[in-house]
Amino acid sequence: MKYNASHLLLVLDLAGTFVFGMEGAMAAIRHELDFFGVLVLAFTTALVGGVIRDLLIGAVPPASLRDNRYAATAFAAGAAVFVFHHFVVKIPMPVIIGLDAAGLGLFAVAGTEKALEFGISPFIAVLLGTITGVGGGTVRDMFLAQVPSILRSDIYATAALLGAIVLVIARRLGTSATVAAFLGGTFCFVLRMVAVWQHWNLPKVAG
Amino acid sequence: MKYNASHLLLVLDLAGTFVFGMEGAMAAIRHELDFFGVLVLAFTTALVGGVIRDLLIGAVPPASLRDNRYAATAFAAGAAVFVFHHFVVKIPMPVIIGLDAAGLGLFAVAGTEKALEFGISPFIAVLLGTITGVGGGTVRDMFLAQVPSILRSDIYATAALLGAIVLVIARRLGTSATVAAFLGGTFCFVLRMVAVWQHWNLPKVAG
Amino acid sequence: MKYNASHLLLVLDLAGTFVFGMEGAMAAIRHELDFFGVLVLAFTTALVGGVIRDLLIGAVPPASLRDNRYAATAFAAGAAVFVFHHFVVKIPMPVIIGLDAAGLGLFAVAGTEKALEFGISPFIAVLLGTITGVGGGTVRDMFLAQVPSILRSDIYATAALLGAIVLVIARRLGTSATVAAFLGGTFCFVLRMVAVWQHWNLPKVAG
Repeated sequence: MKYNASHLLLVLDLAGTFVFGMEGAMAAIRHELDFFGVLVLAFTTALVGGVIRDLLIGAVPPASLRDNRYAATAFAAGAAVFVFHHFVVKIPMPVIIGLDAAGLGLFAVAGTEKALEFGISPFIAVLLGTITGVGGGTVRDMFLAQVPSILRSDIYATAALLGAIVLVIARRLGTSATVAAFLGGTFCFVLRMVAVWQHWNLPKVAG
Repeated sequence: MKYNASHLLLVLDLAGTFVFGMEGAMAAIRHELDFFGVLVLAFTTALVGGVIRDLLIGAVPPASLRDNRYAATAFAAGAAVFVFHHFVVKIPMPVIIGLDAAGLGLFAVAGTEKALEFGISPFIAVLLGTITGVGGGTVRDMFLAQVPSILRSDIYATAALLGAIVLVIARRLGTSATVAAFLGGTFCFVLRMVAVWQHWNLPKVAG
Repeated sequence: MKYNASHLLLVLDLAGTFVFGMEGAMAAIRHELDFFGVLVLAFTTALVGGVIRDLLIGAVPPASLRDNRYAATAFAAGAAVFVFHHFVVKIPMPVIIGLDAAGLGLFAVAGTEKALEFGISPFIAVLLGTITGVGGGTVRDMFLAQVPSILRSDIYATAALLGAIVLVIARRLGTSATVAAFLGGTFCFVLRMVAVWQHWNLPKVAG
């Protein structure tokens, strides 16, 4: 059972890595980067959030540099998008948004759980879970010399943050790590999808 | 006495965090970021300089992620600016510049002293103290897709650097850590205020 | 012999630091940064690639913050370019490209070798060697609010990557660390020079 649970987790983690890697590669192609740039943005979008989390909690070398499968999956996603670009751009937007929301929930709860395991306080663990979910996309936007989209609008990082909070509350209430992660990840996913559907935004200070 | 000294230091540190957090939030609002963006820039401006220093000297998790009060203070500053924005913009500029210069001096000497305590050479400790003072604002500017203002003009990072050097010299001359920090921080503060008042700038290569 | 070999390595490393520092300073002057900005970009371009590698493999404080000579060399390069700018701009472009390609090969193989020594897998060590070579220039471009040039075009990071791969293959085939480093560095240098000469570029997805 232990083996199967951690095996499932690895498969989910690599699936999230592949989805985020595809999105990074698509952003790179939109900005006319070359093949190397496509691979770099695939890697960055998929893995840099977790790398930052691991640096901050002192888990070095970061997990994604210790297990070759993470980088290999991110590069495979980048190369696949590069080669099959004309097919990839035809994937309907709702599918991409759904896969991305699933990856976001997965990364946010995995990051929060790992921070808790390293003895980080729940308050900071929630921040680190959010960074795990959105850090890669943030650095990707910085590479593209753009203000990170998560700072501008949209319920995206907020969904990751609230999913992480749900996980922490569930654990406080005594649920197992697995159930807490499932509840937090699902909350993040559903909130993100509803927010896109309903065009929810966070408030700004009126100009 | 020991308790009171470190209590004072904590209060000063949190006060500096609040001031820098306010400035980050104001920059976020000027760039029309949403509430999440305001909190992120408050956190970044207030705490990322110290986080970078702690990563570089191997003090992980960084101090500001080990004590919840730092992040809470930065977020409180961000939320306060968001809610009371119409009052905050009426604070006279000299007050903001003065508070900022005080925070800069405080962070620069605290960062230098911490690096020295970790066995870093005085030369590098001065650099790390400067990074503690200006690193948060630098990353904030990078989030805003702008060339960091400290690289362009103005005696700002230079004031932090020279304040850190004053601290190191004072310690070499045998003063206590407290006196050295007071001298360095005051030097930084006074130099910054005079530089603003007199419109001092660093030289550039003539175009 | 041991002494002489490591002495030569140090001299080469500091020479590479000086060359990369000069390039960072020249970029700073082109963007009208002040003297402080020139020193920061010299330091960044020369040393941040190695700093990132050391953070990722857990070698903290990073080597370039443990030995004062690295930062001193980078700052000396920045100050020299600032003071003698009118002479520096007259250095023929092929000389700069040649010195830069030599520095790139040197940093890429030194970074790969250090990662291997820290028990990193060859696949990830190649990535860390590439980051050592191109990370400083990447962060410099981010400071200048530009999309890093290595993501856009040109055989540059690719030369570092392939040089690192040559090193790993040579070690697998049983050569000594010195020979493997020489082969990898030379491969990187030659490939970079030929690519500039022949205007080679990596493919992009056609718009």
